[in-house]
Amino acid sequence: MKVPKKAEKKFDGIIFDVYQWEQEMFDGSKETFEMLKRPDTVQVIAVQGDKILIAEETQPMKENFLALFGGRVEKGEDALSCAKRELLEESGYESDDWELWNKIEPYNKVEWTVHFYIARNCKKIAKQNLDAGEKITIKELSFAEFIETCISDKFWGKDFTMELLKMKVNGELEDFEKKLIG
Amino acid sequence: MKVPKKAEKKFDGIIFDVYQWEQEMFDGSKETFEMLKRPDTVQVIAVQGDKILIAEETQPMKENFLALFGGRVEKGEDALSCAKRELLEESGYESDDWELWNKIEPYNKVEWTVHFYIARNCKKIAKQNLDAGEKITIKELSFAEFIETCISDKFWGKDFTMELLKMKVNGELEDFEKKLIG
Repeated sequence: MKVPKKAEKKFDGIIFDVYQWEQEMFDGSKETFEMLKRPDTVQVIAVQGDKILIAEETQPMKENFLALFGGRVEKGEDALSCAKRELLEESGYESDDWELWNKIEPYNKVEWTVHFYIARNCKKIAKQNLDAGEKITIKELSFAEFIETCISDKFWGKDFTMELLKMKVNGELEDFEKKLIG
Repeated sequence: MKVPKKAEKKFDGIIFDVYQWEQEMFDGSKETFEMLKRPDTVQVIAVQGDKILIAEETQPMKENFLALFGGRVEKGEDALSCAKRELLEESGYESDDWELWNKIEPYNKVEWTVHFYIARNCKKIAKQNLDAGEKITIKELSFAEFIETCISDKFWGKDFTMELLKMKVNGELEDFEKKLIG
């Protein structure tokens, strides 16, 4: 959901900005409503041949986890540029075949979109260039291993897990495999 | 995740409080980290005979949606008391058979737990007593209709949808039906 235009910024955070506004209720009374805005993020499904590449990651304050490559869209950056930058920084790979697969708004009280990209035909062209708060090992998974991993508790990224579960329940995983690997 | 003890409260919101702290990175450098705290919430799976009761709801700023009964835990209130209060206010029903079914932390940058309760043997004892920002109609669903509804796009409550999808994929829905209805 978008923060309404009439809302006032009450706090300017490092990630989260807080907005408030007067909202009319059904009985005509008014209440102060509150919402957050945060930078959009990208997640990259990185494909190399018939393998999917994912990150095994350590960050301060978190247990080790598995995740798609990705991160926050910076000021003045578009989502695709961010996806290319994050893939290169976190893995050293680049791709010449990008597709926007899905956009998800994870949480209705936060103005925040996660952009999911497929990057086919990935090639290693550089060393990783990690932030001081990241340690990342790259895992190569078959499609079946990828699905199992991303549905498991060790995977960070509930919205992607949810999409995979929906596809599994609806019998759409075979099409998804074709989309990724051909 | 919990906000670390050393964190400082930087903003005191209506729903969201913002905390920040200095975090040491892997190379010894420091960065300011940010997290939010918000009131815990409860969600009630209300059972009457072989039917599940859910809310068809209208709120300012939202499209009509379907949801479990529930709401925010108030200051000084425990989660079960909140569940009983919200069920009574939103539906006019009470139950003498409560069970804490699950606890979920939806979002790792927010200290926030959702408590899911099963309320069996629900009985209507009062009229609804709704907030100025709520309009609620009660729907009675069979177990199969309930699952279908809570997996659909009209349902508000992704964390519950995710749990149902996992149970469906793992063949655990029959056990869940027994737990609810017997």
